Amino acid sequence: MLQVSLLIKADILVHNCTILPMKGEEIIQKGFIAITDGKISHIGKATKALSVQAKRTLNGQGKVALPGLVNCHTHVAMTLFRGIAEDRPFDEWWEKTIWPLEQKLERSHIYNGALLGCLEMIKSGTTCFSDMYFHEDAIAEAVQKSGLRAVLASGIIEAGNRDQGRRMLDEAVTIAQRFQGSANGRINIRLGPHTVYTCSPELLKEVRKAASKLKIGLHIHLAESMSMKEAVKANFGLTETELLEEIDFLDSDVLVAHCIHLSKEDRQTLKKHDVKVAYNPVANMKLASGVPKIWDLSKQGVTVGIGTDGAACNNSFDMFESMKFAALLQKTLFRDPAVLPAEKVLRMATIEGAKALGIESTVGSLEVDKKADLILVDFEKPHLTPTHDFYANLVYSAHGSDVDTVIVDGEILMENRKVKSLDEPQVMKRAQENAYGLIKE
Amino acid sequence: MLQVSLLIKADILVHNCTILPMKGEEIIQKGFIAITDGKISHIGKATKALSVQAKRTLNGQGKVALPGLVNCHTHVAMTLFRGIAEDRPFDEWWEKTIWPLEQKLERSHIYNGALLGCLEMIKSGTTCFSDMYFHEDAIAEAVQKSGLRAVLASGIIEAGNRDQGRRMLDEAVTIAQRFQGSANGRINIRLGPHTVYTCSPELLKEVRKAASKLKIGLHIHLAESMSMKEAVKANFGLTETELLEEIDFLDSDVLVAHCIHLSKEDRQTLKKHDVKVAYNPVANMKLASGVPKIWDLSKQGVTVGIGTDGAACNNSFDMFESMKFAALLQKTLFRDPAVLPAEKVLRMATIEGAKALGIESTVGSLEVDKKADLILVDFEKPHLTPTHDFYANLVYSAHGSDVDTVIVDGEILMENRKVKSLDEPQVMKRAQENAYGLIKE
Repeated sequence: MLQVSLLIKADILVHNCTILPMKGEEIIQKGFIAITDGKISHIGKATKALSVQAKRTLNGQGKVALPGLVNCHTHVAMTLFRGIAEDRPFDEWWEKTIWPLEQKLERSHIYNGALLGCLEMIKSGTTCFSDMYFHEDAIAEAVQKSGLRAVLASGIIEAGNRDQGRRMLDEAVTIAQRFQGSANGRINIRLGPHTVYTCSPELLKEVRKAASKLKIGLHIHLAESMSMKEAVKANFGLTETELLEEIDFLDSDVLVAHCIHLSKEDRQTLKKHDVKVAYNPVANMKLASGVPKIWDLSKQGVTVGIGTDGAACNNSFDMFESMKFAALLQKTLFRDPAVLPAEKVLRMATIEGAKALGIESTVGSLEVDKKADLILVDFEKPHLTPTHDFYANLVYSAHGSDVDTVIVDGEILMENRKVKSLDEPQVMKRAQENAYGLIKE
Repeated sequence: MLQVSLLIKADILVHNCTILPMKGEEIIQKGFIAITDGKISHIGKATKALSVQAKRTLNGQGKVALPGLVNCHTHVAMTLFRGIAEDRPFDEWWEKTIWPLEQKLERSHIYNGALLGCLEMIKSGTTCFSDMYFHEDAIAEAVQKSGLRAVLASGIIEAGNRDQGRRMLDEAVTIAQRFQGSANGRINIRLGPHTVYTCSPELLKEVRKAASKLKIGLHIHLAESMSMKEAVKANFGLTETELLEEIDFLDSDVLVAHCIHLSKEDRQTLKKHDVKVAYNPVANMKLASGVPKIWDLSKQGVTVGIGTDGAACNNSFDMFESMKFAALLQKTLFRDPAVLPAEKVLRMATIEGAKALGIESTVGSLEVDKKADLILVDFEKPHLTPTHDFYANLVYSAHGSDVDTVIVDGEILMENRKVKSLDEPQVMKRAQENAYGLIKE
């Protein structure tokens, strides 16, 4: 019998691990992943007939490889406000503390806050996040430095001031032109009109047009608060979703965050236009905003990703934690433990999250020719023992701190929990100084 | 001016850390804790006039010292079932999987499962847990070996079989006589009649009498499931709480777990008899059992501790995670972000938990003459930066993996995350083998 052996050359070889590719239901035991030029060149079960020559070899013994987690809704620089004005009524929290502090934010604060957020995300297994804030150009620079992938939406808030709305849209367009596709394609830009409540229909129409012209997507808060819903209804006689549909805002490139106070018809409207949803269970619970019917949306076929929201209302970027909250909150709402099972939640945090951001052809699952955005989770931990179910252990037992290795775009950003792209103590120190400075002023 | 300096001798000195004693609202910066003969001999702010001579010195730089967390409701050996039969309807989960597997459990399974649970608890900052299960003698041995503190209730289930109920009560009494106060007082014993639904009023009366005679407490599930509530109502014309009151079961030494389906009158009854409550937010959400009105109970003055419940319905013993769920679930239920603030939650997980178990004179806060049960949490982490609020960072941002050092009864059980009392790989291996063996059989 003739033995044919195949030699593969690669930049990085990850071998000897369990792989959850999140493509179909396949789980690969004793698998390997070969990475070349930032992409997955080979993935599968190790065989004797196959040998790989790699510049770097990572031993995955006892570890589980899966796509890097995708955080669909953040305000990353708000790490500076983590733990400020806790457990207050919403208006007091927002109007008396967060909003006045945001007025004081300078570009350097936002850069340092964003770097801290990026560091936290790397350390908890997130490889891509979708942000909305001011000075997204500073955040783009932080993303570039950190090595992460991101979809960054420049926030646009009119708040009754037409000139301000117009100016913020212009700035957002400039940032889009400058950063779209930068950092070897790791950075995607969107426009981020804040809400239907804080942007007029006229401005929203302009924003929609600008996005279509630039061929970029949109990111907006939708139906987060009951008072906002009521105010929009009083002003326009429409729900927020109805208003967005009426002005032709809704399309498959729109990501809407929250979706708590939706009618059945609103949900059908989102489905009709293939609008994508970011589900933020922790922030919704912490701010007591209400509980979105995500299971209904998902069953209707709406693409749902998971977000943490900002550190001022979560107070963590740990997507493992958010996955557990995501599942348990739907089970609680529908009074059914079978609702939103672990595998589906992990799908929302990977491939569906990527789809929600319009980048599912590039990332979100481990497949040949996709970008090498992946994480290794160390399963040799008491709280991950035994392993009757990989999905359940990841969603219900694991934490971000179980992530051992993070690879984005074929670059190793963390190995053995040591972050390579950022100077951890320095990033923490600068953000801390900025945060304390803002409070003292 | 005369400088008087004081020399203290101690077994262990923890110094240079922030201390949250959880006694009143005081936070001690640059504090120290001296431990002698298993107890806290001195605690306070370091001064120049004070010097400590200690056999072991732990540098608390960048760390926060607080009382070890108290987990008020577990079935610790169920770690073996972590991840089994996930996301199924309750009856299928319980009757088709968990209960049949429990029938196969031998004493050695329970010992090995409990050791894994103890290991997980040490690694996530729990120093005391309150358990209910079969073969609590095996669990007592695991606790003894691990170095943890525990309140162990031997489960008693009649389920229509009077002889079985009687026999289990006798066994429970034997275990109580043998283990009460053992392991230098680290082990307390209780009787654990399963529910009003699975134990007849006659048996519950006998159990109550036996506990009073032995001067030990009781631990029972109460109002966890709607179907159980309805069955009790149909059989006896009473709520579970009414029935327990009618047979004189309720007293200040009774710990009731769950308390989901309670009437307003039931809550008043619990308050009247000073009954203690174990709140299990993660298990309640995961099994979709409903949401207990813990904020109401707490405002009425009922003592509430927090529990994780077993690994088959959580699937984690991480009390930091449970604290976050505890707060957020009440905010969600009452639609008010100010409900159950972080400091109160941390109180529930420490001093109130200790009170719920009747051991608040010994542990639960850091005070002179209390047992040295404490943990050091490493705050030099991106996700704990900045520190605007210690309580909020602990409850909303920290995870069990941030615990660096665990001390129980004056013994260092973990230092720099290395567990000293247990052989970590061996405990995991044995539990894993037992778990896989049970499934294969």
